[in-house]
Amino acid sequence: MSNDSNSTRRDFLKKGALAGVAAAGSMTLGFGTKNASARALPTPEKWDAEYDVIIVGSGFAGLAAGITAKENGAEKVVILDKMPVNGGNSIINGGLLAVVNSKLQEKEGIEDSVELYLKDLLDAGQDINHKDLIKTVATEGQDLAEWCSEKGVEWNPTLEHLGGHSVPRTYLTTVSSGSGIVRPLTTHYKDKLGGKLQTNTKLTGIVREGNNGRVVGVRVREGYSFDFDSTDGDRGNTSGTEKYYRAKKGVIMATGGFSQDPFFRGAQDPNLAMPTDELDSTNHAGATAEALEEMLRVGAVPVHLAWIQSGPWASPNESGFGVGSSYQIAAGFRYGIMVDTETGKRFMNELDDRRTRTMAMFDVIGDLEDPNYPITIADSQDGVMAAGTLEKCLERDVVLKFDTLEAVANHFNIPEEALKEQVNEYNRYVKEGEDKQFGKPIDDGMKPIEKAPFYVMEGVPKVHHTMGGVMINTEGLVIETATQKPIEGLYAAGESVGGPHGASRLGSCAIPDCLVFGRICGRNAARDKA
Amino acid sequence: MSNDSNSTRRDFLKKGALAGVAAAGSMTLGFGTKNASARALPTPEKWDAEYDVIIVGSGFAGLAAGITAKENGAEKVVILDKMPVNGGNSIINGGLLAVVNSKLQEKEGIEDSVELYLKDLLDAGQDINHKDLIKTVATEGQDLAEWCSEKGVEWNPTLEHLGGHSVPRTYLTTVSSGSGIVRPLTTHYKDKLGGKLQTNTKLTGIVREGNNGRVVGVRVREGYSFDFDSTDGDRGNTSGTEKYYRAKKGVIMATGGFSQDPFFRGAQDPNLAMPTDELDSTNHAGATAEALEEMLRVGAVPVHLAWIQSGPWASPNESGFGVGSSYQIAAGFRYGIMVDTETGKRFMNELDDRRTRTMAMFDVIGDLEDPNYPITIADSQDGVMAAGTLEKCLERDVVLKFDTLEAVANHFNIPEEALKEQVNEYNRYVKEGEDKQFGKPIDDGMKPIEKAPFYVMEGVPKVHHTMGGVMINTEGLVIETATQKPIEGLYAAGESVGGPHGASRLGSCAIPDCLVFGRICGRNAARDKA
Repeated sequence: MSNDSNSTRRDFLKKGALAGVAAAGSMTLGFGTKNASARALPTPEKWDAEYDVIIVGSGFAGLAAGITAKENGAEKVVILDKMPVNGGNSIINGGLLAVVNSKLQEKEGIEDSVELYLKDLLDAGQDINHKDLIKTVATEGQDLAEWCSEKGVEWNPTLEHLGGHSVPRTYLTTVSSGSGIVRPLTTHYKDKLGGKLQTNTKLTGIVREGNNGRVVGVRVREGYSFDFDSTDGDRGNTSGTEKYYRAKKGVIMATGGFSQDPFFRGAQDPNLAMPTDELDSTNHAGATAEALEEMLRVGAVPVHLAWIQSGPWASPNESGFGVGSSYQIAAGFRYGIMVDTETGKRFMNELDDRRTRTMAMFDVIGDLEDPNYPITIADSQDGVMAAGTLEKCLERDVVLKFDTLEAVANHFNIPEEALKEQVNEYNRYVKEGEDKQFGKPIDDGMKPIEKAPFYVMEGVPKVHHTMGGVMINTEGLVIETATQKPIEGLYAAGESVGGPHGASRLGSCAIPDCLVFGRICGRNAARDKA
Repeated sequence: MSNDSNSTRRDFLKKGALAGVAAAGSMTLGFGTKNASARALPTPEKWDAEYDVIIVGSGFAGLAAGITAKENGAEKVVILDKMPVNGGNSIINGGLLAVVNSKLQEKEGIEDSVELYLKDLLDAGQDINHKDLIKTVATEGQDLAEWCSEKGVEWNPTLEHLGGHSVPRTYLTTVSSGSGIVRPLTTHYKDKLGGKLQTNTKLTGIVREGNNGRVVGVRVREGYSFDFDSTDGDRGNTSGTEKYYRAKKGVIMATGGFSQDPFFRGAQDPNLAMPTDELDSTNHAGATAEALEEMLRVGAVPVHLAWIQSGPWASPNESGFGVGSSYQIAAGFRYGIMVDTETGKRFMNELDDRRTRTMAMFDVIGDLEDPNYPITIADSQDGVMAAGTLEKCLERDVVLKFDTLEAVANHFNIPEEALKEQVNEYNRYVKEGEDKQFGKPIDDGMKPIEKAPFYVMEGVPKVHHTMGGVMINTEGLVIETATQKPIEGLYAAGESVGGPHGASRLGSCAIPDCLVFGRICGRNAARDKA
């Protein structure tokens, strides 16, 4: 084809531009200084308190930041939380930590690599992940299990193999919950390092020097009382007293996601606009969007806000994450199969990524007013019996126990023969080591489903994780739209950040993200020469 | 299952909250007033100019707003544009307008409805569209063809059938370009209605009364000179002189999308972070993110920013939208087939929605450094010969002409027999009225591909439309994060708005969106009692 055809629109417009310049007459040309300006709160006349480093949010990211800031020489460090208890959403999180080249992988003979970790995250994230950030997580996260253990975290002795991961690489706390990390880190931060933690304190503004410069502090409401009956993400709650806190070295936003904010999540997906009592979320009630919104007002770059993930492993028979989610992740999906009770047939790879499974399950569930919940069926093989929360699930009727598959079919009104055929077909694939039906990865730990009694759990996806947040660089600094450069003194880590997980976060990759970037932010803020 | 198992996490946390309140001691509880506050520019000491309505952006939405504001009694109206020429991206747009229940549909005997229009948009938009907004577009857009004609717009005498639309419903300007709408609307606005249009004037700030109240004006740079060589979305360009303009009745943001902003689009999808000379866009050079960023700073709700659409109908042998896109939309994809030159086989429904086609094409193209561009093959049937830009495409070697399919196979090194088999198979489906290969909708206007000469165009997707923007209500008012209510005096329309198109915009649905909401904003601002 001829090169002549490449007359460019840009060239055309350039000519137009010059013509326009001529027509507009003389004008001042001056590039290089800033044009658009941020609108942070200006410096107050008087600060009510002074710190070296102020951390907003007391979950995984905030605690890691607090510990590392102290370890790196910051004397006055405070972690603020708007809620009456500390720990944020992390304390009710599933307690799963995916890291590569770990001691347990070595022990179990599992080959893994940073590259394979990145590939798994990019596959789930539809390749829009900020690769520099996940590379940092994978690389700097390799010591996390030990880093946590040193502070008193207790891990199960074997790895989990979660959906979307090529190999088992996931540690699980012995209590099957993030509280198993939050509690020892909190104790370490407060008691060992002398860090300050202040609840009932809500961020309402970020202060920049001269309005547009370095972040030098925050505006808060002390004695804030979160309104648990709020239906609008707790907006308009002005309880407590307004105070200004100075941060000499930096402010670290570890403020989490917005899964419990019907307004903000509904703006991204109107199907999620219903209040939580209609469309449940696994998150704690404080997972609202206000801190994120404040960062946008001071000029942070919004990233991936429209990507909201539901967790496919929840139970419709309890609220929130509950006890069923951990069972379903560790046992139901791995050692069992999920079937549509109307047909008795499987309809997905039970270890596929969360978004794919969620969409497949909602297809089966149909109308939420008259739902057809699918069920997982597992048996009494070792992996299932080892699931930490099975006992609690049985106590709460989240998991039901049956002596035979016939009884399962009867209870859920499933076509019995179809169900038995399905179980037999799946068992054949397990023996052959290859799932020819849906491509579920079969590993040596998985056995055929044949050992009574059988365990059955109904499943429903719940709003679980908001991939979006603000843009940061690998040093944890928040990037500004107007300049494309970091906002000095403003850091962010964890779910308040967008980018690492792209379109869909893989299970057990939140904790390493929070801890790695929490550590980076704490270290960098402490060392800030400001 | 037992109800007892429904112990709720919310109940648990409520108890925790009360305990927390008690622990924190007495505090002021006061709901209902605002907590977080926006940070718009405060009112200046002196305004440099005063208008009733200020419109930022002079494309479809801005012009419709200007016309309607004048028609509804606003005396002093100004349309500002940062570029040296007016028309924004609209002037190089494809000139396609999809409306329901139109005169041409009646003439051609096509049954259509608002409901079918909504269904098509929701299917393409993955059901995350803001339904109230598209219902407004479909309902209030039914008169648009005539509304435009009254102002001098000339339409082709027959409808187009675009990908993703259930029926033909798309008008095309006789010049096959949006300039066929922009020019008559501009003339009408300026000459008939006495409206003012001011180019080389860039918005740099939105002014709110008392910082946090009604929007009462804008800060601009007059005599601004857009830097066509900028690689960063023209950030940091401070040419021109700073001025403050008062808007007594309202500011309407018709500022377009950010397809030409490698930084902002790259933050959403790192695969799009390359500058435009590496990854082309169909948009004019001024399609950058700064006005959107300013709206976020004053507290607008970001919606769907991560959804960026590439146009699957572009040519790799010219820059931008070019002349090839119109040919491919009107003829190549409708009357022809697209094949992978390595196999000679089709690989998609050529009339599928844009995102699905883009992803299928990038799969075939592979490495952008060594691309394997697919081609469309069409023949000399009436529909192809009627394509308005065919002649120009041939002149510029964007479309090549061949006497036989053998010659096509030879030129592109396609397996000849496979190609012929593919064409024969497709021709059979056309005769049978059903595409059993990929489900392309076959209508009566389509004939088998058999009449020499044959027309061939290489294809590549180019960044075309950014679905995301700020949240508005059906009155065109911008919604604020902190209050979930409209920001008084601030309107937005067109591509600067997020929501109508969800995850992927259907072709020919941008113009009706721009015109309908432009008219709504103009009318409402003019009638504002402020």
